[in-house]
Amino acid sequence: MMSVNHTHNPALKSWVESANQPDSDFPIQNLPFGIFRRRGTSEPFRAGIAIGDQILDMQAAHAVSAFDVALDASLSALSLPKLNTFMSLGQGAWSAVREAVSAALAVGSSLQDTLAECLVAQSEAEYDVPAHIGDYTDFYTSINHATNVGKLFRPDNPLLPNYQWIPIGYHGRSSSIAISGHSFHRPNGQLKAPDAEVPVLAPCKRLDYELEVGIYIGTESPLGHPVKLADAEQHVFGLCMFNDWSARDIQAWEYQPLGPFLSKSFASTVSPWIVTMEALAPFRQSWTRPAEDPQPLPYLDSHDHRNTGAVNMHLEVLIQTAKMRADGVSPERLALSNFNQSYWTIAQMVTHHTVNGCNLKPGDFFGSGTQSGISRDSVGALIEATVGGREPITLSNGEQRTFLEDGDTVTLKGWCQNDSAVRIGFGEAAATVLPAIDY
Amino acid sequence: MMSVNHTHNPALKSWVESANQPDSDFPIQNLPFGIFRRRGTSEPFRAGIAIGDQILDMQAAHAVSAFDVALDASLSALSLPKLNTFMSLGQGAWSAVREAVSAALAVGSSLQDTLAECLVAQSEAEYDVPAHIGDYTDFYTSINHATNVGKLFRPDNPLLPNYQWIPIGYHGRSSSIAISGHSFHRPNGQLKAPDAEVPVLAPCKRLDYELEVGIYIGTESPLGHPVKLADAEQHVFGLCMFNDWSARDIQAWEYQPLGPFLSKSFASTVSPWIVTMEALAPFRQSWTRPAEDPQPLPYLDSHDHRNTGAVNMHLEVLIQTAKMRADGVSPERLALSNFNQSYWTIAQMVTHHTVNGCNLKPGDFFGSGTQSGISRDSVGALIEATVGGREPITLSNGEQRTFLEDGDTVTLKGWCQNDSAVRIGFGEAAATVLPAIDY
Repeated sequence: MMSVNHTHNPALKSWVESANQPDSDFPIQNLPFGIFRRRGTSEPFRAGIAIGDQILDMQAAHAVSAFDVALDASLSALSLPKLNTFMSLGQGAWSAVREAVSAALAVGSSLQDTLAECLVAQSEAEYDVPAHIGDYTDFYTSINHATNVGKLFRPDNPLLPNYQWIPIGYHGRSSSIAISGHSFHRPNGQLKAPDAEVPVLAPCKRLDYELEVGIYIGTESPLGHPVKLADAEQHVFGLCMFNDWSARDIQAWEYQPLGPFLSKSFASTVSPWIVTMEALAPFRQSWTRPAEDPQPLPYLDSHDHRNTGAVNMHLEVLIQTAKMRADGVSPERLALSNFNQSYWTIAQMVTHHTVNGCNLKPGDFFGSGTQSGISRDSVGALIEATVGGREPITLSNGEQRTFLEDGDTVTLKGWCQNDSAVRIGFGEAAATVLPAIDY
Repeated sequence: MMSVNHTHNPALKSWVESANQPDSDFPIQNLPFGIFRRRGTSEPFRAGIAIGDQILDMQAAHAVSAFDVALDASLSALSLPKLNTFMSLGQGAWSAVREAVSAALAVGSSLQDTLAECLVAQSEAEYDVPAHIGDYTDFYTSINHATNVGKLFRPDNPLLPNYQWIPIGYHGRSSSIAISGHSFHRPNGQLKAPDAEVPVLAPCKRLDYELEVGIYIGTESPLGHPVKLADAEQHVFGLCMFNDWSARDIQAWEYQPLGPFLSKSFASTVSPWIVTMEALAPFRQSWTRPAEDPQPLPYLDSHDHRNTGAVNMHLEVLIQTAKMRADGVSPERLALSNFNQSYWTIAQMVTHHTVNGCNLKPGDFFGSGTQSGISRDSVGALIEATVGGREPITLSNGEQRTFLEDGDTVTLKGWCQNDSAVRIGFGEAAATVLPAIDY
């Protein structure tokens, strides 16, 4: 795990003034990576680092030789349209770029005049999925979510016997992962009401979001080489916000015995910025589970891991309905949760994923699974908030929701905040539901 | 669906003599695509077409301008180290190359002297996975397999209610798909005996093969654009043999509620050659299901589809144990099956996969699921052949197997044969089990 170093110093300020606002997601202590270009242009996508309301264009910075030649390999990689090559360079390269950019963007830097020419306003940018995601694995690490959903699918058996032993996960569909700001059609699929004799093909009626943390693998783990828990985080590049849209009625009919398939593969949404594990160092926390629960098998447990395995990361879901948009009403919070309640940690996910010899590649992606607290206003999916659609929620403007309606925009946000460090944010993962297409 | 044309003419012979042997997998009527280089060299991988015991090196053929300039885009694509770009060019391009290569390799071709210089012996070649597989989906289309396995996991409820309505599938792991000829370590994983209180981390004791047909998507289907049944096969490039190695004990403990995960992701094996849908045209058959079974929903059904939806493709599993290898004993057949017994067709898989708007990309891959007949000598996995490991099978040399042992090599073969066409083959998908690594 990364240790807290001078790049986290709360006294650091940037000459990019907007980065010094206390509510900025992107102070100089953050420095997340993304892939962008000026909106509406045919410029090549390339890497940028968010700073305040600006983006430091890393290709432009390379072109003007802003940084030491020792960073040339990294800067060349950051000129490519995906982050995979940079990810593959490893923690040393990631840290060196962070260190150089932190110094260059700090008040008093001699590079201010040079790099001021390399800034692009975020308001003028469009983004792409920042990595080519080879394989995407969705985990299920929130025991509250597993219990809440389990009650609906299996009232007599909500939490399955393997849950407390295995970081349960399944393979997801990578082709339909899109960048924040997109919209997608409500999926058609086979639905079968419990009392119906046969299924029908129809638009999903129980469309839901899932509030997840996205995890990008940085460095490869070759086939046949399990990653030990102590080494696991070295392979992780960073985190983002992730919405694993879910069609609950399609899921209920299709998921036995091989798991969710078309109920998930129509769309998933990632936020543009990847916050590095190094940036998250001040927000690490101890990881524990109740003493009465089974403790992890040795390959998933260690003293160090228990000390620092968790991430104190606030997670928020907001909704803006079509009516709210028409009326000029801002998005409204549906839930507030925290990744530090996860029953399994990032390191445990990596180690378990590779214990069978499975390889991981740069740009591979994990979803954390829906992160739910216990109270109704802290659950990460409507199926939990509405108790399976039985208890609608009422929005401030009087509209009700059991599941999502056409025109709804759902936005996920995340941020880290504590008493000893500068708050850092993740930006947002937002997308809008379009009507189903005629089939 | 492709129609039978002159490239299938049984009277066609090649000037590559080995292609005219009746037992050759690769007569001039086949012409499958693969990715190869000379073994032990650092040559770039590029596309080849199998002919008899030779490979027509398409990069070399392009370099000597053997073909019409109208094929230049295809030949440039075939000079790349993966087939994805060629796949993306579509059925017209695939057919044009097939037609040109068929004419060029036929007895009497004026190109014989030129192309004779472009042949590489298969005995001197090594292969790579022929496409970059973005997403891999494993289906479950054999009702015999679903019933046999269902009996073991759920004796009271072997065939789930959705099976006859949905081409059940799940997302698989693409990173661990390897080319025939590899070996892999027996996976470690969490195992929990039914009478054990807690799981342990240990080498898999119930390692199995799965006899599957692999299906490569050729042309893209964009997000939000379902593929109608009548158009489905236009997106399919071709078929291969596929072994979806499975750790049954890991699977039994992990698979609820989200499906198989580490029980499958340690290794999968593809054969080197992709037999195109056009080459398979003479072997298409009517697809029916028993009148007493539910008939498919309209989006998965049509008159044309019933006429020609199936593929008459023989499938075989062979084993060679370490002892057999040491004693010079050839691989022994474990099962013989046929893809024409599949409860769901290729077109139904494509159409169902996209009905929710999910996109397909060139090089995406489907597994058909284990193809099992009814009799014990026609089932595509050991878990079926040994009734869950309770009834060992005895090999000719007296060795017994319930599940696979270290040193076992499993080989899958496939071929199409009928009275009106020349037999075509798929080559083989073979791999060897190594001992588990110490953890």
